[in-house]
Amino acid sequence: METSIYALVDIVAASVAALSGALAAQQRKLDLFGVFTIAYVTACAGGIFRDLCLGSVPPVGLSDWRYIACALAASATAVAFSRVMERMRNPVLFFDAVGLGFYAVVGAQKALLLGHNASAAIILGTATAVGGGVMRDVLLNRVPAILQKEIYALPAMAAAGTQVLGRALGWPILVAPWFGASICIAIRLASLRYGWQLRLRSRG
Amino acid sequence: METSIYALVDIVAASVAALSGALAAQQRKLDLFGVFTIAYVTACAGGIFRDLCLGSVPPVGLSDWRYIACALAASATAVAFSRVMERMRNPVLFFDAVGLGFYAVVGAQKALLLGHNASAAIILGTATAVGGGVMRDVLLNRVPAILQKEIYALPAMAAAGTQVLGRALGWPILVAPWFGASICIAIRLASLRYGWQLRLRSRG
Amino acid sequence: METSIYALVDIVAASVAALSGALAAQQRKLDLFGVFTIAYVTACAGGIFRDLCLGSVPPVGLSDWRYIACALAASATAVAFSRVMERMRNPVLFFDAVGLGFYAVVGAQKALLLGHNASAAIILGTATAVGGGVMRDVLLNRVPAILQKEIYALPAMAAAGTQVLGRALGWPILVAPWFGASICIAIRLASLRYGWQLRLRSRG
Repeated sequence: METSIYALVDIVAASVAALSGALAAQQRKLDLFGVFTIAYVTACAGGIFRDLCLGSVPPVGLSDWRYIACALAASATAVAFSRVMERMRNPVLFFDAVGLGFYAVVGAQKALLLGHNASAAIILGTATAVGGGVMRDVLLNRVPAILQKEIYALPAMAAAGTQVLGRALGWPILVAPWFGASICIAIRLASLRYGWQLRLRSRG
Repeated sequence: METSIYALVDIVAASVAALSGALAAQQRKLDLFGVFTIAYVTACAGGIFRDLCLGSVPPVGLSDWRYIACALAASATAVAFSRVMERMRNPVLFFDAVGLGFYAVVGAQKALLLGHNASAAIILGTATAVGGGVMRDVLLNRVPAILQKEIYALPAMAAAGTQVLGRALGWPILVAPWFGASICIAIRLASLRYGWQLRLRSRG
Repeated sequence: METSIYALVDIVAASVAALSGALAAQQRKLDLFGVFTIAYVTACAGGIFRDLCLGSVPPVGLSDWRYIACALAASATAVAFSRVMERMRNPVLFFDAVGLGFYAVVGAQKALLLGHNASAAIILGTATAVGGGVMRDVLLNRVPAILQKEIYALPAMAAAGTQVLGRALGWPILVAPWFGASICIAIRLASLRYGWQLRLRSRG
């Protein structure tokens, strides 16, 4: 039961990440295969890194055909509705925030289930959540957005930390993941809405 | 016997990949060590990623000195004949196509031998083939060519798929790899010759 | 005893690598989280790659909170003294050279301890030493400095090779690491001081 809930959350997160990747690639004018690849990488790179670090091989992103299906569906959606979506920055950011929270929770949980400590769980939860976006930006040849001016990885870290805390304190199994993901999504959306930044000092 | 054939194919693929990497680095005016590193990375990065995902450590690219020898020989060739080769775009693309097909077949075969499913074999075959070129372009700070306008990963995917199919249908052991690699090389060279593209729509 | 010496050397190397990363990110005007992330990645990426290749999971950079502490301290130092350090290119390069030598020795030693051969030990020692800087430059969206014009990876390779040689020849345990690291630091600093290069030919 618990496993299937996490599996569902994982697929939801993969779908929204793939959509955000496909839209970014579409906006960057890559070809069809490039759009699919960026969608797949954005959905799976964080999880592949997490699984490699946990020694859980082959990484689920490779052996589970549903991730490829997510990337294909996301690419088709992005291409079919490209004219509409080229002007829609907000949906991309919203989907991205949802995927961020869910992935952070799933990643931290997997590290805990395999017996690793809180440090590894928080880092790998965060890496699961932001890894795809970092790889997307590296492949699109730009400095990852999360390093420059946006509050992006901190909410993911909060979600992973909440999951670790919930496990340590024995919360009911459904509380920590939904609470953690909600915190992450709320912080991320609020930071976008109100323009929160961590910049070191104002520059022209 | 079968093992030694795959080992030979692997070294051939490594050599041509290393040569394409060394030439690209040479054209980008890196220093001697940079040329060697890009040659080595182009030859080995895909296989290292594949081996990490298969839990086959240490990756062969690290523990087998022949890959380093390939990278050294390729670098020496690229540097010694730089004036000639700077104007030779076609040989680079030809060697690259040959390496692409062989690597895809070898990668898929290794995943199958270790008991993984068709999804993992096709993805890892493709990743083995294109991973080196992607890393080469990331290190040279440009959007990987395979994502932009060229038909590059699809033929690799066709080769990996042929290898998986051949195994599933019980073809004689020499048929699937050579047939798969040939399909890949033919598609790749034809797409270069005739300018096939997967672009989403024509742009000025 | 021997283990604790290598652990100390490892933390020293992590600290100086983190400082060099934080200063580079600071100079690139990333936000606070970006400075911390680049510091952490510069300190840990090489070791994470090494540990993945050795099958030693989870990589120490993830499960050991001291690396995060190093990255936090380095970020705080870089930010607090930013005005001073923005003009200090030399300390960054000096710390970087020290970290380079120590990491190469530690990386090679870990590969040997886990029973791998000289080829893997030298490559992984070098990768441990230069991996963080390469990832730093990839994330900062520039061609890694080590590939372009500086003598950087060769001294690391010399340090890793010295460590392998010392083990093979049965040197006392403290000789090889300090001797190897010293050679690396000396070559690196001399190459900076005297402008040694491996460029293929002079260009305007």
